[in-house]
Amino acid sequence: MDKQLHEFLQKQREVIEQKLPTYLERLQAPETLKESMLYSLHAGGKRIRPALLLATLHSFGKPTEAGLDVACAIEMIHTYSLIHDDLPAMDDDDMRRGKPTNHKIYGDAVAILAGDALLTFSFELVAGSEKGELTPEQKLRIVAEIAKASGPEGMVGGQVADIEGENRQLTLEELTYIHHHKTGDLLTSAIVSGAIIAGADREDTECLRLFAKELGLLFQIKDDILDVEGDAAMIGKPVGSDHDNNKSTYPSLLGMDGAKREIEAHKRKAKEYLYKVKMDHKLLDAFTDYVADRDH
Amino acid sequence: MDKQLHEFLQKQREVIEQKLPTYLERLQAPETLKESMLYSLHAGGKRIRPALLLATLHSFGKPTEAGLDVACAIEMIHTYSLIHDDLPAMDDDDMRRGKPTNHKIYGDAVAILAGDALLTFSFELVAGSEKGELTPEQKLRIVAEIAKASGPEGMVGGQVADIEGENRQLTLEELTYIHHHKTGDLLTSAIVSGAIIAGADREDTECLRLFAKELGLLFQIKDDILDVEGDAAMIGKPVGSDHDNNKSTYPSLLGMDGAKREIEAHKRKAKEYLYKVKMDHKLLDAFTDYVADRDH
Repeated sequence: MDKQLHEFLQKQREVIEQKLPTYLERLQAPETLKESMLYSLHAGGKRIRPALLLATLHSFGKPTEAGLDVACAIEMIHTYSLIHDDLPAMDDDDMRRGKPTNHKIYGDAVAILAGDALLTFSFELVAGSEKGELTPEQKLRIVAEIAKASGPEGMVGGQVADIEGENRQLTLEELTYIHHHKTGDLLTSAIVSGAIIAGADREDTECLRLFAKELGLLFQIKDDILDVEGDAAMIGKPVGSDHDNNKSTYPSLLGMDGAKREIEAHKRKAKEYLYKVKMDHKLLDAFTDYVADRDH
Repeated sequence: MDKQLHEFLQKQREVIEQKLPTYLERLQAPETLKESMLYSLHAGGKRIRPALLLATLHSFGKPTEAGLDVACAIEMIHTYSLIHDDLPAMDDDDMRRGKPTNHKIYGDAVAILAGDALLTFSFELVAGSEKGELTPEQKLRIVAEIAKASGPEGMVGGQVADIEGENRQLTLEELTYIHHHKTGDLLTSAIVSGAIIAGADREDTECLRLFAKELGLLFQIKDDILDVEGDAAMIGKPVGSDHDNNKSTYPSLLGMDGAKREIEAHKRKAKEYLYKVKMDHKLLDAFTDYVADRDH
């Protein structure tokens, strides 16, 4: 990974992980609920979405501090989605990132409610943000952006399509729909929120939206390829597990060569959109290379 | 019930029930998800929260149309909370209002996601409302108000406290905490949102907040009393079911006479706050009487 990008991601991850619990500590709420919310917020991960928001701000030459509340709100939405996905009624996962999942510790009822609380609180956090002198218009655009990205037309819609597509062969169109919405939309809303906070004009904001959509797909296609080719120790799950689970993937639909050609095509498109934006492209350019070329 | 109030509630209920599905029909989302969301939105109920929002607007002499989006958003949040409450992991209810609960029809996974989607979409609806020329400031205040009322410090917090208090004797303070948050906060946010939309000043808005808190408690104490004394056919559940379920209630903690004295005390306080507000009090006054004096 590019050295400047590596340092940026590492530093912002620290800032985000330090900030995240502070919002919850001051809440007047039952201790069990706060503990359960904090447990999953602390569970780690790459903090890609908030980092992308802050990277966008940085690339516009703005202080990242201005986006910290919104970045954390988006990470809370991501966290809620993982808690609900792991439930017995959904993927029924006992472990995530080497730790028991939320419902294994707190029970299904509290896990559902902790997810609900994280989702709901994220909107309170955006609406009440006093960072960076955001105007009410900006905050409202961000609320609308994030809500659409995580609601029925976004993440939740993608999740339902994913459940409905289980155990049958998907078309490429169906697979792309699922990825666009299940994972791409929230990631896109992070980058677009960064643009809104930076005060980018509509043209730049829409170019970044298109860039982010390509980046999201790039992520997913690369994940599918790594699942077949990667080193189990590096990617953190057994190689070939998608194949064993009878899951439709890009390599299974396009063949390995076809999937790799898609990587190149989406990387090229992502960069085309990125280069049109009136900002310093270096960080997001390096990020795009990292997503396409990583080995885990 | 007062005739003017009866006519108002009946008319607004029709308006709300006609409007609610229109938001979902135009969504680009998987059909199963939309169906599941619509199923529970159609399931009826008294539509008390949206009606109170519209009644508040009306009492300030404003057109109710201006609050219709926000009223429907709050009803969606109420609906999501019922879907999640009914899940096997929570209350495990098979029936609600004479119809199978959401998860009995669509399965637990889709029911969880339909709840998530209704909650998330409600914020999109408020942020994007074009009714009544709401300013971004007003919409943002409403987002913050509703999010706080339904999040960890509000409804979800009350629900966790309720779960934790099951099968043990609660103190009056604990019982009041649960009711304030589990049911009172969202009802309060409806009335406060009405005040914000009407452009009420801070003083009136805060008086209405205090009024609404009293009204919410009044509702709950009366429900507890009706559970002991009411006519099973009228209240729609077996009389005494709270007692059989070993649930802490106002009559069980204060005795029946004590609970009835609480009704009078909270009714008096509610009206004291209400009469301070610069509005036509008639509708909300009649509503308060209805809540305190109803027989089902």
